[in-house]
Amino acid sequence: MPEEFKLEKDCPLLAGINTPADLRKLPIEELPQVCSELRKFLIYSLSRNPGHFASSMGTVELTVALHYVFDTPNDRIVWDVGHQAYGHKVLTGRRDSFDSLRKWHGLSGFPNPDESEYDSFIAGHASNSISAALGMTVASKLNQDGSRRNVVAVIGDASISGGLAFEGINNASLSNSNLLIILNDNDMAIDQNVGALNEYMTRINTSKAYNRLRYKVYHFLKRLHLIDEKHRGLILRFNNSIKALLTRQQNIFEGLDIRYFGPYDGHDVERIVRILGDIKDMEGPRLLHLRTRKGKGFRPAEEDPVTWHAPGRFNPVTGEREVEDATGKPPKYQDVFGHTIVELARNNSKIVGITAAMPTGCSLSFMLDEMPGRAFDVGIAEEHAVTFSAGMAKDGLIPFCCIYSTFLQRAYDEIIHDVAIQRLPVVFCIDRAGLVGDDGVTHHGVFDLAYLSCIPGVVISSPMNEHYLRHLMYTASMGKNGPFAIRYPRGCGVIPDWQCEMHELAVGKGRKLCDGDRVAVLTLGPIGNDVQDVIKSLGNKGCHVAHYDMIFLSPIDEGILTDVGQRFKHVVTVEDGVVHGGLGSVVTDWFNDHGMAVHVTRMGIPSRFVAQGSIGQLRHECGIDNDSIKTKILDIIDNKQ
Amino acid sequence: MPEEFKLEKDCPLLAGINTPADLRKLPIEELPQVCSELRKFLIYSLSRNPGHFASSMGTVELTVALHYVFDTPNDRIVWDVGHQAYGHKVLTGRRDSFDSLRKWHGLSGFPNPDESEYDSFIAGHASNSISAALGMTVASKLNQDGSRRNVVAVIGDASISGGLAFEGINNASLSNSNLLIILNDNDMAIDQNVGALNEYMTRINTSKAYNRLRYKVYHFLKRLHLIDEKHRGLILRFNNSIKALLTRQQNIFEGLDIRYFGPYDGHDVERIVRILGDIKDMEGPRLLHLRTRKGKGFRPAEEDPVTWHAPGRFNPVTGEREVEDATGKPPKYQDVFGHTIVELARNNSKIVGITAAMPTGCSLSFMLDEMPGRAFDVGIAEEHAVTFSAGMAKDGLIPFCCIYSTFLQRAYDEIIHDVAIQRLPVVFCIDRAGLVGDDGVTHHGVFDLAYLSCIPGVVISSPMNEHYLRHLMYTASMGKNGPFAIRYPRGCGVIPDWQCEMHELAVGKGRKLCDGDRVAVLTLGPIGNDVQDVIKSLGNKGCHVAHYDMIFLSPIDEGILTDVGQRFKHVVTVEDGVVHGGLGSVVTDWFNDHGMAVHVTRMGIPSRFVAQGSIGQLRHECGIDNDSIKTKILDIIDNKQ
Repeated sequence: MPEEFKLEKDCPLLAGINTPADLRKLPIEELPQVCSELRKFLIYSLSRNPGHFASSMGTVELTVALHYVFDTPNDRIVWDVGHQAYGHKVLTGRRDSFDSLRKWHGLSGFPNPDESEYDSFIAGHASNSISAALGMTVASKLNQDGSRRNVVAVIGDASISGGLAFEGINNASLSNSNLLIILNDNDMAIDQNVGALNEYMTRINTSKAYNRLRYKVYHFLKRLHLIDEKHRGLILRFNNSIKALLTRQQNIFEGLDIRYFGPYDGHDVERIVRILGDIKDMEGPRLLHLRTRKGKGFRPAEEDPVTWHAPGRFNPVTGEREVEDATGKPPKYQDVFGHTIVELARNNSKIVGITAAMPTGCSLSFMLDEMPGRAFDVGIAEEHAVTFSAGMAKDGLIPFCCIYSTFLQRAYDEIIHDVAIQRLPVVFCIDRAGLVGDDGVTHHGVFDLAYLSCIPGVVISSPMNEHYLRHLMYTASMGKNGPFAIRYPRGCGVIPDWQCEMHELAVGKGRKLCDGDRVAVLTLGPIGNDVQDVIKSLGNKGCHVAHYDMIFLSPIDEGILTDVGQRFKHVVTVEDGVVHGGLGSVVTDWFNDHGMAVHVTRMGIPSRFVAQGSIGQLRHECGIDNDSIKTKILDIIDNKQ
Repeated sequence: MPEEFKLEKDCPLLAGINTPADLRKLPIEELPQVCSELRKFLIYSLSRNPGHFASSMGTVELTVALHYVFDTPNDRIVWDVGHQAYGHKVLTGRRDSFDSLRKWHGLSGFPNPDESEYDSFIAGHASNSISAALGMTVASKLNQDGSRRNVVAVIGDASISGGLAFEGINNASLSNSNLLIILNDNDMAIDQNVGALNEYMTRINTSKAYNRLRYKVYHFLKRLHLIDEKHRGLILRFNNSIKALLTRQQNIFEGLDIRYFGPYDGHDVERIVRILGDIKDMEGPRLLHLRTRKGKGFRPAEEDPVTWHAPGRFNPVTGEREVEDATGKPPKYQDVFGHTIVELARNNSKIVGITAAMPTGCSLSFMLDEMPGRAFDVGIAEEHAVTFSAGMAKDGLIPFCCIYSTFLQRAYDEIIHDVAIQRLPVVFCIDRAGLVGDDGVTHHGVFDLAYLSCIPGVVISSPMNEHYLRHLMYTASMGKNGPFAIRYPRGCGVIPDWQCEMHELAVGKGRKLCDGDRVAVLTLGPIGNDVQDVIKSLGNKGCHVAHYDMIFLSPIDEGILTDVGQRFKHVVTVEDGVVHGGLGSVVTDWFNDHGMAVHVTRMGIPSRFVAQGSIGQLRHECGIDNDSIKTKILDIIDNKQ
């Protein structure tokens, strides 16, 4: 790998592929070379402009084979969780803009139909591909323009454990669809994969001797011209039955009326092309099981795919990662959560921890290591995570259920039906709340305040810093208040010396940070630190601004609101979430309901979807950066408003 | 069956069973008699006080066996969808209050821990039992009081198709739980069951010859004392393997590391008791598959279980149902929807219909009958229903996705991620919106306005009557506005002559129904008719009240708000949904944001969970009955406010 990368020199074939049509002109023998170049391209680009890495490295051959065999974009490829689809982006007209990946106004890190007609469907949240693809097969059948198309869903072995994927599989055989599901089985979620289905796939994979035999038989029959167009499906299926007999394995997919083919080596591009050619026009739903290796082709990533899921910048030759020196800096909120839950659990045997496939991301890994019997990674299964927590809470435990804000949307009904109605003391540790930056539109955790605040009896809180995260966790761990949500953002806090003594907070009580005489600013969560900076930056004028850290959205601190309503004509609310339904709405409605004539300037995420970018860029775009906040406050102080 | 039912005379054994402990004192030979009496009791009670019928009739033997074998309430029975649990209520101390079932301040129609310690978990929404029960097994293991308990999840063959149930199954083997899952397989959801899993269970069931043989072998070995405590699990499991071999069936559950036992006749109470005794203390997750018949023991219900799912009042001897004469009365909103979608679909080939297991309930059955290729019942799979719709919409169709409001909560993430981000023209026909009456706390559809209104770009509407339902459906069918939600309540509308010409409405435009000079009342949906009645009842004072039917919550009609804000100091909003986040919040926040000093009286469901009762009782309880509305309006007119 040269230090200086030149597309034409290093990737001569790839340089000529501007669309998949160019790829399809190549002879099949050149595909391994295309794969090798694509990998080189990804390594070089992602070493400079960090993103997800290991997943897309594992799907290089599959990506090339799919675009080689299928007539994209007319045929549909639906990627499940898009970070396996970088190669797809490169092959479909986005090679030269690939360096803008995950950047503001650049390429999205996930497939996005707004970006390219080759991106058939949005793909940020796991497990949706089968259902969406099934819908497309129906549309293809019903559309009266006569264009039948092939539809392929590409789903990982982690994503397939999600309930939505199962519902899709369960319905796949019904509508007599010609859906092709490709199971990209790398035995890995972002962390280690879990679940019986995964164990099951491992068992399928271990019968190597049989697979070799089977393939020999297949090619023998083919040479003898005993397999023709009509019978090849039959033969492959018959082989599966033999296999089930020989290995005494139950084939779940066949049980669900989906023809099963596999497992095959997902890195043998020529073979995949041939298999896809064999099965692409068969009638009825089929599943092709491919074994791949996360990080394939880059040794450091193959050896440590968890770290290399999203490694940051690295040296493309040595694989050395650029790791920032964090000494003396504030810790990530995630690590504060991770260490604090262990600390609490040591003293309180009722505490258990739950994560849905994100043990490293949310740092529940510390608890999983220290007390494995009391911490649970349930895989990509947010609904189960919440109801499982509810079951534990019902019988006396205090579950800390840690899920990213955007993924908690998956468990909305379970929060209402299984937790809130029964007033169970489940602690929702809502990670990645607010704008998340470069993961973009599918990943911002901006709806949680709104969708939770309409549920009766749920305590909703957000700490302004690490100390308050600890206090809130301690308070929640007492289990006295029913469902208790604590939301905190991705990334670092503000206090290097975070290991304070924990104490119980009064639920529903905020705190005054400074007083003023012209305007009161109410904030929720870490964005309060930015408001503090803004107030400092006002110099003399700062004395006009009162600032309250509400800590709780629900119950809202009516003491503060009464005081503020009596003393101020102008109130500003600032939150890192959608304005409608969040802090701004709660405060505005409260003043209205209590007959207080206060004008509330509601600052937060406006009612539109926000794409990717740095947090700073996105805050500016949404009008909640420090400059925007400062301008609003000054307008009020200077009587312009 | 006597016309005059006397507990002591007709049900002498049942009369002595005040708790399951009484049941456990009976010899096993008397259990069939208990079952027969329990059935008699249910028939008699439900014939007078209508409720769900067929499901609980099918689980009589299972219910008796469970309480006979397990040490309830210490052992946990988690019912999945509670309308199979009426017998359970009768046996667990609620026999004498059973006539209050589903009534205001009476017994809930579903298990509810607030009602009885025997109700281990809430059970209104399907598919949650396995996850909740799994949580309880963990709690039982971790709780330090030394009390190990057995945990049983009872799930129907329809509920098990939900994604949440699959996530639970997929995790069942991991935590080394001793969970017992009982699959109550009656081959029925509320309507016909669908899905590959269901087909699969049908195949399992058809191998009767094998089952007979198997049972003979089992008892033979037992007589020879070849099966002891230690080996009985092994033998049963070995039998399953033989069965898989003989029948060439794949056992999905064994594939997922759950020991499978069955299928057995679920109406042979003595046998079920013996089997439960055999397997109750085994280690590891197990699934017992019982075949039952919905409506068992009451011929009319056995023959037509769809109608007898919830038959209303009936004659307990003849089975004749009391069907109200609906001639000349307004139709149900459901039927208006059902006929209108067929009418629209005849003229627009892009229209398709989707329901999640409620074809009869939401009247999509008309379309399923007339154009089966364009209407889809996906089973209990709301997430799939929405993403499947999104896939179809992505490729050019206009899906009308019809889901009850309370169940749409299950698909919240799919609405955001798969539909809204891509601005797809999926039409959400949100049935059973608002208070639903006797189904109670788990079923009220009161959160939809709040949880949808924070999602960017979703049109949210509610028709005041049947004509507007048709106009809204017609408008939505043009597919010009992205995601389009239409919410309407359970039950009858107000216009007997409902078949009007349809025309396109301006999206985001409401209408003025009458003008006034003191207060403006803004309503959304059919509750506007009640407000009209209130205004009429005001006599002369009615001229002070302006009334607007907003039709759309989002986008809100800013023309109306501007006009109202300029002319009125007092505005009242009335909606059949939670106040926070709904119409009241949107209007209040808008006036605030536009600097208009208007006081808004926000009437709707308060922030607490509401139990069962008649719609009238519940509206009164929530302060949105006509009297409450009238009082508020008069207070304003008379300057008391």
